[in-house]
Amino acid sequence: MKSAKPYIEEHKQRFLDELIELLKIPSISADPAYKNDVIKTSEAIKTSLEKAGCDHVEICETPGYPIVYGEKILDKDLPTILVYGHYDVQPPDPIELWDSPPFEPVIKVTDLHPEGAIFARGSCDDKGQMYMHIKALEYMTTTGQLPCNVKFMIEGEEEVGSEGLVWFVKRNQEKLANDVILISDTGMIANDIPSITTGLRGLSYVEVEVTGPNRDLHSGLYGGAVANPINVLTKMIASLHDENKHITIPGFYDTVEELSAEERAKMAEVPFSKEAYTKALDIEDIYGEEGYTTNERNSIRPTLDVNGIWGGYIGEGAKTVIASKAYAKISMRLVPDQNWEKITELFTNHFKSIAPKGVTVKVTPHHGGQSYVTPIDDLGYRAASKAYEATFGKTPIPQRSGGSIPIVALFEKELKSKTILMGFGLDSDAIHSPDEHFGIWNFLKGIETIPQFYHFFTEMSE
Amino acid sequence: MKSAKPYIEEHKQRFLDELIELLKIPSISADPAYKNDVIKTSEAIKTSLEKAGCDHVEICETPGYPIVYGEKILDKDLPTILVYGHYDVQPPDPIELWDSPPFEPVIKVTDLHPEGAIFARGSCDDKGQMYMHIKALEYMTTTGQLPCNVKFMIEGEEEVGSEGLVWFVKRNQEKLANDVILISDTGMIANDIPSITTGLRGLSYVEVEVTGPNRDLHSGLYGGAVANPINVLTKMIASLHDENKHITIPGFYDTVEELSAEERAKMAEVPFSKEAYTKALDIEDIYGEEGYTTNERNSIRPTLDVNGIWGGYIGEGAKTVIASKAYAKISMRLVPDQNWEKITELFTNHFKSIAPKGVTVKVTPHHGGQSYVTPIDDLGYRAASKAYEATFGKTPIPQRSGGSIPIVALFEKELKSKTILMGFGLDSDAIHSPDEHFGIWNFLKGIETIPQFYHFFTEMSE
Repeated sequence: MKSAKPYIEEHKQRFLDELIELLKIPSISADPAYKNDVIKTSEAIKTSLEKAGCDHVEICETPGYPIVYGEKILDKDLPTILVYGHYDVQPPDPIELWDSPPFEPVIKVTDLHPEGAIFARGSCDDKGQMYMHIKALEYMTTTGQLPCNVKFMIEGEEEVGSEGLVWFVKRNQEKLANDVILISDTGMIANDIPSITTGLRGLSYVEVEVTGPNRDLHSGLYGGAVANPINVLTKMIASLHDENKHITIPGFYDTVEELSAEERAKMAEVPFSKEAYTKALDIEDIYGEEGYTTNERNSIRPTLDVNGIWGGYIGEGAKTVIASKAYAKISMRLVPDQNWEKITELFTNHFKSIAPKGVTVKVTPHHGGQSYVTPIDDLGYRAASKAYEATFGKTPIPQRSGGSIPIVALFEKELKSKTILMGFGLDSDAIHSPDEHFGIWNFLKGIETIPQFYHFFTEMSE
Repeated sequence: MKSAKPYIEEHKQRFLDELIELLKIPSISADPAYKNDVIKTSEAIKTSLEKAGCDHVEICETPGYPIVYGEKILDKDLPTILVYGHYDVQPPDPIELWDSPPFEPVIKVTDLHPEGAIFARGSCDDKGQMYMHIKALEYMTTTGQLPCNVKFMIEGEEEVGSEGLVWFVKRNQEKLANDVILISDTGMIANDIPSITTGLRGLSYVEVEVTGPNRDLHSGLYGGAVANPINVLTKMIASLHDENKHITIPGFYDTVEELSAEERAKMAEVPFSKEAYTKALDIEDIYGEEGYTTNERNSIRPTLDVNGIWGGYIGEGAKTVIASKAYAKISMRLVPDQNWEKITELFTNHFKSIAPKGVTVKVTPHHGGQSYVTPIDDLGYRAASKAYEATFGKTPIPQRSGGSIPIVALFEKELKSKTILMGFGLDSDAIHSPDEHFGIWNFLKGIETIPQFYHFFTEMSE
């Protein structure tokens, strides 16, 4: 495939103008007051897909906000790429911390974006990254270079849990049939260090309650003679890690995938400055599981973190009370091939088993999701790698993310296909925060790289 | 000394009527709205002391509420008893939980008080118990049986920290010179199991703050790679007790007094039903330091309890955050001869020393106080024991309380004398709670027993 660069150079101002118009619509799915704007955005996406060359575009109703579906089918025997993205955005709160209004996009130069970045809610997450795919399609159809079939599925509830999407996917396996799923809703390491996200961690989130005496007690009269639920809870939580920071829940690691030496070696290529890392967080030292690097600890290894804890007297001053109850919210980030429901069960059984006599323990699961991984020998991954090589002149680094995107595991389960996470944002782009932005260079580089993926994926599928 | 029984029988209705009048005045020291009532109560006490036979009574101003001082000096060569009590009361909140208005005393029969109990705020703590001493003095002066000198020091700020009293005691050592201090502001085991409080625990109360990263972090992106302040805090707190529930702070037990076999044997006479204890608290089992009974654990042994803990997300639902900070309020109950300031220092140094790299720790002392003990071979204790034998027909059980009354240690330091804690209330009398009450039998038994103490103390001092 020819480089899209000349086409992009010719049309880049129009591409930016179109994206800016899209960013002006406050499609905040979390706030019912913006319902009309969310709907209006879905219609704008429909029009964009039609203009970009889709043969068929429809707005598919769900129990929530609609999904915009579009397709261009060249030949049933050719591979089919399914592009997923979302047109809804996070609320802009706290709005007073924005330097410019969140729905009045402006272009400003920053240290990391010397060619300028668009500042607006949704510029990176995900309108900007989703729109790269529509413009890449426009390039391929306009220049007659589209090598395969393509389907678009753009939802409007990603920021509120994707319930409508789950409903839609389960009912439309045939319509959505594909050979690979392509998503740009993550980031890359740096503009000169391209990377592809190959893994997402799963999650098990629970709440625990430890009950001791049936009422709050005077610590003078009962101190030392009854199990104090807070002391007991700290002891129970502390015992969940050993001195090497391994998690002690029996069976917890049984299904944890051990990475190949090759994949760990690739990870080790990711530049990491301990000095910069600790300085940015204002901590004296890093901390974590023995035998693993920081990049491994927060991506390929499972974790157990207390996200919240409370009990007893927490106001001003002092109160000599032994609380009746103590609580904690605990989440575990999971990796392949840990099953989140199984892990929740292992946690629950273990946590109850370590409670001393004198207290009772309740464990309430909040929610969870499966981890996801794309092997680096997967066809889609190899095609993506070649695409980056073509446009960045460098082999991208495969990178597991520590975060969780539950719908990706759902796609694998329901649609039986792998997802390639080609993100072009940077960690510093402030998604979900005030002053969200997306580099113009990154936006255009995405449009340039995506057609190469189509090309290599089709070629390598033969 | 003759039994006071006939005198009490003759005058008991008047005694009760007088106490009820005193209980009608809402002398709530914590609430400035009741200032006039607090002052009015001090004047009522002054009048009572004069009527009971004191030679000299004065209202002594302090920076806070006044102290009522009274004395009857028979002969400088005779022993002097200093009676301490307080005329202020706790606020009655939550007032809606009272069965009858807190300042409209009523007499009702209860299971433990078949002869009736006076229900009113302050009935037991401490107007009722303090007034026993005034009526005992009346008996002795009226019948010409007072065997020694007596001084009264009745304060009005006990429920708000006794600052005025501390100020007064430090400036009046000579005026307050005495051979023994007598207080009725504690309880006894049961009406048929008389007991004398021989010890009070000291206290060191601190607040700790553990700081990790300089801001809250996303647990997906940082989980497993940085020290989580809540996990670290639980580990640090858990390490403060070993598997035998001994406290691990170096030097913590160095000055802890080991009780004599005789005193431990006496303590073991205190009836204790594990079944009743666990049933009342609705717990499966007791819990505490190896090698000690429940009664020992909550009286003669030092403790370390978390009174409050908080950090991270504690609202509804789930948030995947790694908090920047975690906090706990921790108190240690201390025993002779632990110095509370030294223990606070030991705790602070130890707690900071066990912090892993990656967090910083701040320890803020809240307040503290010294423990106190009266040896059972002390003259005052032996005299009190004989007094109970005379009126109850039983040897009282010496009982260490788990609670703390910091002024008792102050008296020892400033006035160089031991305090005898002759309490006649029951644990079930609901002091500081709605429906506070004091048994009429207990009130009259106190009036009967106190003169016997005067008698034996004087006789044994010769």
